[in-house]
Amino acid sequence: MAVHFKQAAIVGVGLIGGSLGMVLKRQGLADSVVGVGRRVENLRTAVELGAIDRYVSDAKEGVRGANLVVLATPVDTYERHLKDWAACLEPGAIVSDVGSVKGTLVGQAEGLIPERAYFVGAHPIAGREKTGVAAGSAALFRGARCILTPTQKTNRQALQTIRELWEAAGSTVLSMDPFLHDQVLGAVSHLPHVVAFSLMNALVEIRERTVPGLDLLAYAGSGLRDTTRIAASSPEMWRDICLWNRENLITMITVYERHLATLKQLIQAGDGPGIERELERGKQIREQLNS
Amino acid sequence: MAVHFKQAAIVGVGLIGGSLGMVLKRQGLADSVVGVGRRVENLRTAVELGAIDRYVSDAKEGVRGANLVVLATPVDTYERHLKDWAACLEPGAIVSDVGSVKGTLVGQAEGLIPERAYFVGAHPIAGREKTGVAAGSAALFRGARCILTPTQKTNRQALQTIRELWEAAGSTVLSMDPFLHDQVLGAVSHLPHVVAFSLMNALVEIRERTVPGLDLLAYAGSGLRDTTRIAASSPEMWRDICLWNRENLITMITVYERHLATLKQLIQAGDGPGIERELERGKQIREQLNS
Repeated sequence: MAVHFKQAAIVGVGLIGGSLGMVLKRQGLADSVVGVGRRVENLRTAVELGAIDRYVSDAKEGVRGANLVVLATPVDTYERHLKDWAACLEPGAIVSDVGSVKGTLVGQAEGLIPERAYFVGAHPIAGREKTGVAAGSAALFRGARCILTPTQKTNRQALQTIRELWEAAGSTVLSMDPFLHDQVLGAVSHLPHVVAFSLMNALVEIRERTVPGLDLLAYAGSGLRDTTRIAASSPEMWRDICLWNRENLITMITVYERHLATLKQLIQAGDGPGIERELERGKQIREQLNS
Repeated sequence: MAVHFKQAAIVGVGLIGGSLGMVLKRQGLADSVVGVGRRVENLRTAVELGAIDRYVSDAKEGVRGANLVVLATPVDTYERHLKDWAACLEPGAIVSDVGSVKGTLVGQAEGLIPERAYFVGAHPIAGREKTGVAAGSAALFRGARCILTPTQKTNRQALQTIRELWEAAGSTVLSMDPFLHDQVLGAVSHLPHVVAFSLMNALVEIRERTVPGLDLLAYAGSGLRDTTRIAASSPEMWRDICLWNRENLITMITVYERHLATLKQLIQAGDGPGIERELERGKQIREQLNS
């Protein structure tokens, strides 16, 4: 039988939370969806867009009676949230999340949730330069990957239910240890974000120092636009990701700095064959990424 | 009166040269277009695709009788090419190029071309991850920018003719000093390429060291794909750009390294407000780039 919830609560009705609400409602996966949040205007938009049926500002109220609670707030707030309303969870309720970092957060959540309820970590890998439910769509997760991060404590039935939820959203669902998740995402997502944000910051300085008065960015082609698209992502969200995946990220930035320094030295030395070798290796691995 | 050439020669019938040939032929801007190259298969494809009317392997032969000669080979070959066939140029012939670096190359070309002919530097800023005429299109330059790099020596009529050619191709044409061109493109194009190639190389090492045996790239979302799309560009072409714009590039890589190091230090220190401030600045400048 298909996954179904009598009542679902979405805590944090932003791009991801709101889009998941649209999936739940459009596909009839939940009889009712309640949104929990503070910004009334955003919550009204969520109702208008069919992401939620109604909203409350008190999370305890929203969580009561819910069979599914989705934490879709910044990962930094998980502890505060769970301490606030975990005691209100129904027997058998499943708490899941959509956070971009897992690692210690999963164990923390497991420790804060009462025995009668279950936690399943989830990370839908979906585009996030825009924020807010207004940018949401029931199609956001279609064709995307969603990584579940079960531990030895994870209830197998709850895991299966969350797997079916994301499959219903059109995603390809994978499972992975929470700490491995942070290594993998550190490499394919967090490091590229650090690179892109830093590139934009460098261009500010280059513009001011090298070509003052010239609208440098007017000369950008699609290359720069694509390379730095993710630098338009939410600074708050990425601050938290940087902090929560700090150790992996520092290691990976260090590896990146070394490769950048190598290419810089080859350029400085005018070593044509050496430069070409570096670029060729980069191109080869890039071509393993389907465009 | 619209721009028109009795005979045009395209030296190097790749993505850019071939696409320009398609523009010349489709729009009737040239009575005949001859391609100069070595790879017969590629040249045959160029004829089939309507990029050129015929081809020759001897550039001297191709250049004779041409009113327009477009150098569309790697910038590193300009000197060799011009020394080979500049003596065969017709009186009044215009030599132009499509290279991504200008600077000293323009003066070099001006010095190698006889008094009876004219050089006009041009750089169409069009996508170049793919190579070869088979990836070409008469629409490639539509909506793109094309930067002309006149000097005090540049013949004004020849400059106007090349301007009209690129406007006919659908491009927005700008003029800029050749050395300023290299600073601007160093910032908005060459530095991002160095960043993207280095990121791919770092990911190779991270994959091997951190998660051996795991197909890391299978977990990549659109963020990594966009960020590193330009790392699929031609290593030969980018080797030459790195070498010919070496000084600007080294300066800019150094600025970038400093901004990366700043963000790394803030992450290492767990400085949330500091991280957010850096990311916010990056996001603000990114938003000045129309997506």
